[in-house]
Amino acid sequence: MSKHCVQRTEAALQAIAAAGDEGARIFVKVYTASARAEAAAADARAAAGISLSPIDGRIVSIKDLFDVSGEPTTAGSKVLRTAPPAQQDAVIVQRLRCAGAVIIGKTNMTEFAFSGIGINPHYGTPGNAKDASRIPGGSSSGAGVAVARGMCEIAIGSDTGGSIRIPSALNGVTGFKPTQARVTREGALPLSYSLDTVGPLANDVLDCAKTDAVLAGQKWEPLIVRSVDGLRVGIPRGLLFTHADEQVLKAFESALGQLTASGIKAVDADLDHLLGAPFKLQENGTLIACEAAQIHQELFANGTDDQLDELVKARITRGQTVAASHYVSVQQARAKLQPQLDAAIADFDVLLLPTVPVVAPTIQSLDDAAEFNRTNMLVLRNPSVFNFYDLPAASIPLPRSQGELPVGLMVVGKRGADRDLLALAQAISASL
Amino acid sequence: MSKHCVQRTEAALQAIAAAGDEGARIFVKVYTASARAEAAAADARAAAGISLSPIDGRIVSIKDLFDVSGEPTTAGSKVLRTAPPAQQDAVIVQRLRCAGAVIIGKTNMTEFAFSGIGINPHYGTPGNAKDASRIPGGSSSGAGVAVARGMCEIAIGSDTGGSIRIPSALNGVTGFKPTQARVTREGALPLSYSLDTVGPLANDVLDCAKTDAVLAGQKWEPLIVRSVDGLRVGIPRGLLFTHADEQVLKAFESALGQLTASGIKAVDADLDHLLGAPFKLQENGTLIACEAAQIHQELFANGTDDQLDELVKARITRGQTVAASHYVSVQQARAKLQPQLDAAIADFDVLLLPTVPVVAPTIQSLDDAAEFNRTNMLVLRNPSVFNFYDLPAASIPLPRSQGELPVGLMVVGKRGADRDLLALAQAISASL
Repeated sequence: MSKHCVQRTEAALQAIAAAGDEGARIFVKVYTASARAEAAAADARAAAGISLSPIDGRIVSIKDLFDVSGEPTTAGSKVLRTAPPAQQDAVIVQRLRCAGAVIIGKTNMTEFAFSGIGINPHYGTPGNAKDASRIPGGSSSGAGVAVARGMCEIAIGSDTGGSIRIPSALNGVTGFKPTQARVTREGALPLSYSLDTVGPLANDVLDCAKTDAVLAGQKWEPLIVRSVDGLRVGIPRGLLFTHADEQVLKAFESALGQLTASGIKAVDADLDHLLGAPFKLQENGTLIACEAAQIHQELFANGTDDQLDELVKARITRGQTVAASHYVSVQQARAKLQPQLDAAIADFDVLLLPTVPVVAPTIQSLDDAAEFNRTNMLVLRNPSVFNFYDLPAASIPLPRSQGELPVGLMVVGKRGADRDLLALAQAISASL
Repeated sequence: MSKHCVQRTEAALQAIAAAGDEGARIFVKVYTASARAEAAAADARAAAGISLSPIDGRIVSIKDLFDVSGEPTTAGSKVLRTAPPAQQDAVIVQRLRCAGAVIIGKTNMTEFAFSGIGINPHYGTPGNAKDASRIPGGSSSGAGVAVARGMCEIAIGSDTGGSIRIPSALNGVTGFKPTQARVTREGALPLSYSLDTVGPLANDVLDCAKTDAVLAGQKWEPLIVRSVDGLRVGIPRGLLFTHADEQVLKAFESALGQLTASGIKAVDADLDHLLGAPFKLQENGTLIACEAAQIHQELFANGTDDQLDELVKARITRGQTVAASHYVSVQQARAKLQPQLDAAIADFDVLLLPTVPVVAPTIQSLDDAAEFNRTNMLVLRNPSVFNFYDLPAASIPLPRSQGELPVGLMVVGKRGADRDLLALAQAISASL
């Protein structure tokens, strides 16, 4: 970092304060005093030649579904404002503190993390960083906007069906969703036991990789420097390329052309029988809905469900009537499908596709519930497939001209090979 | 073995044939020709000083829910008589063949392994080995009777809620249910993905341990010789000692007295809050019922469900109406409870309790459906707790006088420490 941590922290605090009401929609809580103290400590360590981690002194925000000791974890919900305060920090928050991160605040999110749009009627909807009349993407809405607007350097999000990668794509930052088992979810309010993952949003792949090492509790080793020359890339044309904006497809093809010029070997891969399976299988009930219905059943039992965002409530309610046998069927099918996709992509180093098939729509255009639901399904579509298959995936921003809305490129790797995927995403990013 | 394998195999085949119709109720299939060939080969190996495994040349039966290549796996069901033949042997059958076992036949069972009684209206009910008017116990009914009557030396069973340990206890043989992850279930018709385990029934703990090594794909090492002197034993008096026959309690206390004289340190342990939890949690639907409803849904969809054992059908049907959110709740609670019981029993080497609280009732006494259900719940009660908590457990026969019905002693160990449990069960067995 070129500047001292104290200076960068003040600049971030200033950016939040200068945004006024919008700052309060991005950050539901700002830790001004403790962030300043942590920044001073980081500078003192740096002056003494001590570094706790690769993100020592970096400015980090936390999505408001991770416990911070002494505070209720609201998870974007009005109902949880009066929840009992957390007894201790979530494990990943502990790890960030031990790593010397400056924890600047907690970011806003979709209630219970249950949509990809980022609209929140309780705490307000942060506007998109590039055009505040547009959606931020969700569920880690504040996280994506905060990084893009320089209110933090790194944001910690969660991703159950795209909640890190969607706001990354729509705000023009980089996001990384790991293989589920890589990062502990202890102390995070769950949305789905089967699909929840924890990862970073940041300005580049390297910061994501460094943060991922801390979140995973691993010693930092620099990423292996990979070349894109000769890289075997699968392009899953088909279902995941449908209903796409012209400008998204154009940005994707342009990037692909440039990467091909740099030597990648791109091959169209017809994987629709596998990539479409999660949707067909879950037509009569998704794993997320079933598990969310269980996780939030107390709210319905005690009658506070009428305080929920209507659209979130509707999604939970759909899970309440699903039969256990259907849920078991989906889980069994998932376990059989995962090795099938593994086999189908074995000859590729990565898959490349648009993270989200559209640019951020305006907030106003989603007032209509049907349009909201259609758009929500569309933005979740591509990312959610890789939660179902539990493959690590990054979203990196594609080059855009002045005034153009951000578009994200999703780079999908192999289960458990998270660091390989990050190294490849870094190489691809450097070639764009 | 004192006798050649060919002689022992002929004796076993003779025992099955001599039992006439009863033999056909115990074994749904006898592999006379191949067993003779395998026996001859085993003798030839022995003469040449070659041994494939610790059970080379031992006579083994297979419960009819494990695939044997080229045959339908009926799992005790009439409906599956016309199922497509298995394409290959179940993995454990492959392992047994590679280990030089003489596979003598497939044993009868409760339909779909879904009761602890052992009554089967389709293939007949094998009578208890000690009194044929009494139940064999289930679901591995033929397995328990076959070992007790010398029709095989080792029987392979499955245990989801007691299906190995109940017939072991009621017929006076030894049975072992491992930690679930120890033995692959590939090629076994499932009853419950979460609870199914695979293990042996035999005449003593040593044969169970040898067979377990083969089933687990491990190299055989002799069990460590343990002493009962100083052994810390928990006796979970309370719920699991209720509704017990006087003679079962008497046999248990007598054994406990003898073990105490040999130096065990027995301590009464009040574990009812944990041991009773599986029942309370699952009052509105069990994991088994939910998973069985999914596994057998095709039968209900195609209308062949009316060919099922009425009592089995009723148990599956109950699982069809359970909500996914309830199923998820039980799974989550189970994951939290397991480490709690682990902690509560940490200071004990083993738990000791009656495997089944009653001796085998007469088959006739269970004609009444209500009495059947009550007894079924009672015989499953104690064993099923340790499927829920996924702890390894053996049932060893307690000493009985001439004419007394068998009683089993359940020895419960620590998750994943299956060989320790077997070594302790052997020491305890030797002290009775």
